[in-house]
Amino acid sequence: MNVILCGGSGTRLWPVSRALMPKQFVKLFGERSLFQLTVSRNAALCDRQCIVSNAEQYFLAVDQLHELDQTSGSYVLEPVGRNTAPAIALACLALAADELVLVTPSDHLVKDQRHYQQVLDKGQELARNGYLVTFGVQPTYAETGFGYIESGEGFTVKAFHEKPDLATAEEYLEKGSYYWNSGIFLFKAGVFLDELRSHSPKIHDACVKAFKNGIHGEIMRIRHEDMLDIPDDSIDCAVLEKSDRVRMVSAAMGWSDVGNFAALHDELPKDEHGNTLNDCHISVGSRNNFIYGRERKIATIDVENLIIVDTGDALLVSRKSSSQKVSQIVDRLRAQGNGLHNIHLTGHRPWGTFTVLEEARGYKIKKIEVKPGKRLSLQKHFHRNEHWIVVSGTATVTVGDEVRLVRPNESTYIKMGEIHRLSNEGRIPVVLIEAQVGEYIGEDDIVRLDDDFERTVAPSESS
Amino acid sequence: MNVILCGGSGTRLWPVSRALMPKQFVKLFGERSLFQLTVSRNAALCDRQCIVSNAEQYFLAVDQLHELDQTSGSYVLEPVGRNTAPAIALACLALAADELVLVTPSDHLVKDQRHYQQVLDKGQELARNGYLVTFGVQPTYAETGFGYIESGEGFTVKAFHEKPDLATAEEYLEKGSYYWNSGIFLFKAGVFLDELRSHSPKIHDACVKAFKNGIHGEIMRIRHEDMLDIPDDSIDCAVLEKSDRVRMVSAAMGWSDVGNFAALHDELPKDEHGNTLNDCHISVGSRNNFIYGRERKIATIDVENLIIVDTGDALLVSRKSSSQKVSQIVDRLRAQGNGLHNIHLTGHRPWGTFTVLEEARGYKIKKIEVKPGKRLSLQKHFHRNEHWIVVSGTATVTVGDEVRLVRPNESTYIKMGEIHRLSNEGRIPVVLIEAQVGEYIGEDDIVRLDDDFERTVAPSESS
Repeated sequence: MNVILCGGSGTRLWPVSRALMPKQFVKLFGERSLFQLTVSRNAALCDRQCIVSNAEQYFLAVDQLHELDQTSGSYVLEPVGRNTAPAIALACLALAADELVLVTPSDHLVKDQRHYQQVLDKGQELARNGYLVTFGVQPTYAETGFGYIESGEGFTVKAFHEKPDLATAEEYLEKGSYYWNSGIFLFKAGVFLDELRSHSPKIHDACVKAFKNGIHGEIMRIRHEDMLDIPDDSIDCAVLEKSDRVRMVSAAMGWSDVGNFAALHDELPKDEHGNTLNDCHISVGSRNNFIYGRERKIATIDVENLIIVDTGDALLVSRKSSSQKVSQIVDRLRAQGNGLHNIHLTGHRPWGTFTVLEEARGYKIKKIEVKPGKRLSLQKHFHRNEHWIVVSGTATVTVGDEVRLVRPNESTYIKMGEIHRLSNEGRIPVVLIEAQVGEYIGEDDIVRLDDDFERTVAPSESS
Repeated sequence: MNVILCGGSGTRLWPVSRALMPKQFVKLFGERSLFQLTVSRNAALCDRQCIVSNAEQYFLAVDQLHELDQTSGSYVLEPVGRNTAPAIALACLALAADELVLVTPSDHLVKDQRHYQQVLDKGQELARNGYLVTFGVQPTYAETGFGYIESGEGFTVKAFHEKPDLATAEEYLEKGSYYWNSGIFLFKAGVFLDELRSHSPKIHDACVKAFKNGIHGEIMRIRHEDMLDIPDDSIDCAVLEKSDRVRMVSAAMGWSDVGNFAALHDELPKDEHGNTLNDCHISVGSRNNFIYGRERKIATIDVENLIIVDTGDALLVSRKSSSQKVSQIVDRLRAQGNGLHNIHLTGHRPWGTFTVLEEARGYKIKKIEVKPGKRLSLQKHFHRNEHWIVVSGTATVTVGDEVRLVRPNESTYIKMGEIHRLSNEGRIPVVLIEAQVGEYIGEDDIVRLDDDFERTVAPSESS
């Protein structure tokens, strides 16, 4: 069983990643996300997958599995995140005690599949013998952003170390017995749960209770109040640092946590001047720049070692060596009460996507894409009228008691107060332009009367 | 008479300025363009104004004069540009021989109005005595991008010099008798025309012919074939370098040609770290950067001396000291056949503006704003249907023989092939969203049957 942890909402790649579109789901490598690469990598090694995800985001995982033509797999949906120890425990509670569990982050890169497999084979031997196996990556430079594992005799572990300062990291690098903690673990489900009970009984017991009360099925939902009762802790602190059944396998597998833009720049193809290959880029005398953008033309003149990230609503220009300071920008945005750290102009919903094309006093224009077989909630608005113009696909539109098809180049109109629903009963996506007109066009002007996705409270954004 | 030369189509401020929105019309200084600042500056000194402009762009000047509550003023419209000598000659031919003419560029900045007036007073004395007066700006550094005037005894001029190399510019700076050529001139109309006839008779005669054949009125239009017959030359080469009636007044008036972003950065207000004041900007440790952008958030981390220019469809990041290389980017875009050097996402038309919100296979979404009292051409399309949703103002829509009002939150639909027209007969702007749907949505799919703005050929963009 491969347990894939998808709870991360990292903002170290802002403005590419946002709280509602975390790094693991962004298609950083061609048409694939780190999540998809993780799934594919481990599908070759494990027969089953369990995805532990925030309940609000799991549809992103579902969509991306579809793109891989993979529709099986189980889910544990957490209403709030409680760090890795509870996430792993909730997944393990559904398994037989002696089932081997490979725990992987969903947002790391492993480039050497052959070595990866060899390393896991080694780990499997140890795990079968009842050990909690960690995988340590030999450091190639003095990184201060990772935790370190200090290895002992054989596969034993002397100690786990928190993120060091630079001097300490240099010391670790020199000593040679310190490894980066890759966040990949391998063990029997029962061994992990036993060790959790021994060393962090509160977490264990709260997880057992939450699991019992949960809504079971292929998609397991944990209840909100149960999740809140679980203490927040990492597997490292809750179990590994305290257990004597921990072993480490050193792993040379081309690993990267892609934790900032400088790291991402290392992993992407570059032109002869060291700039990221990008069709949007036009350079005069520029070198070694990370250039990210998909729509706008990006012209650079005589600049070096910059990070330039261009998205629909935000632009980042940073010195490459300062790329870890992106979090300071995100903190500032959050403090300003600005939604930019949270959402993109294009938002993902279980039924598809919407993109805000234009917003001004009295109106808002959106492009809405509804996936085949999906429908938005049955809803009404008090303060806005909506015009829908279908440009692709065939929409099924319910207004009041009337249901009608709206074909490409046809339009329809929903008066304020009317109960309506937009569905795609066809085989190709419905693309439509929505013009909202009204004195108040805030997203909270929505009353949901029925919803396939069990959303009843007013959303942060749209339909 | 103040003759304002508006023919420039500079691209040194790309992507802010484009061929169809040249530097003089961009609102670089708060809510005012350099053209507007020029008009206001000289309105205090001259009783009348004549604007010499490209025929395709003069409505930009009309609009911006309206914003200054100025509706008078005459125009000379050139179908193609022929440099400054013909532009000035065409304006002078309409004037009495002894009328004083102040010729000014429309895209320069003069910050010291009091000194400017003093300098012009001095020039006026000389001009009344039959001299061609130039205004020289004392150099403050070794600029290689300007022509220089070498002054002699009194107000005499020894020589005009082309743009120097750096060593020569440094020599000029040291000698103290070399001045930047400000492009401002003062003379009697007749004196200029006499000197033009003496030194460049071909230009003179071609201008006289073009003037005679022109369509006269407050707006004088030169015929295309006549304009093509006029040799292309600057006033400096055609007259000033050859005439012995030239005098120079040295001008300390806070002058800048705002010829690149570094020069613009000097003129704009900055925060305590030397970054341009900009509400869109959020800085961590960044210094001395020129930041231009109006919509997207622009985050910078630890960068210095950069030019960052963010527009709807293009982004520029340049080392500040390389800002004169912007022209290389423009050349590359032109070579790529890319329209980005030419137009913005928002295009200006005599009737108002349009903004492309979204474009994809089979459809295009635009926001269209029609000024009060204006209307688009009577037109039809063969390959696209158009949906119009009015969000502000009241539109008068003609489809075939039928005329109807479309009010805010109402929509209408124009089937392909139908003859239609959009007018604003109201007092406030009409804002509408246009969804074009069809297999072919190129801008050249338009047949114009009638047009208030005498445009009959297919346009580069829209309606």
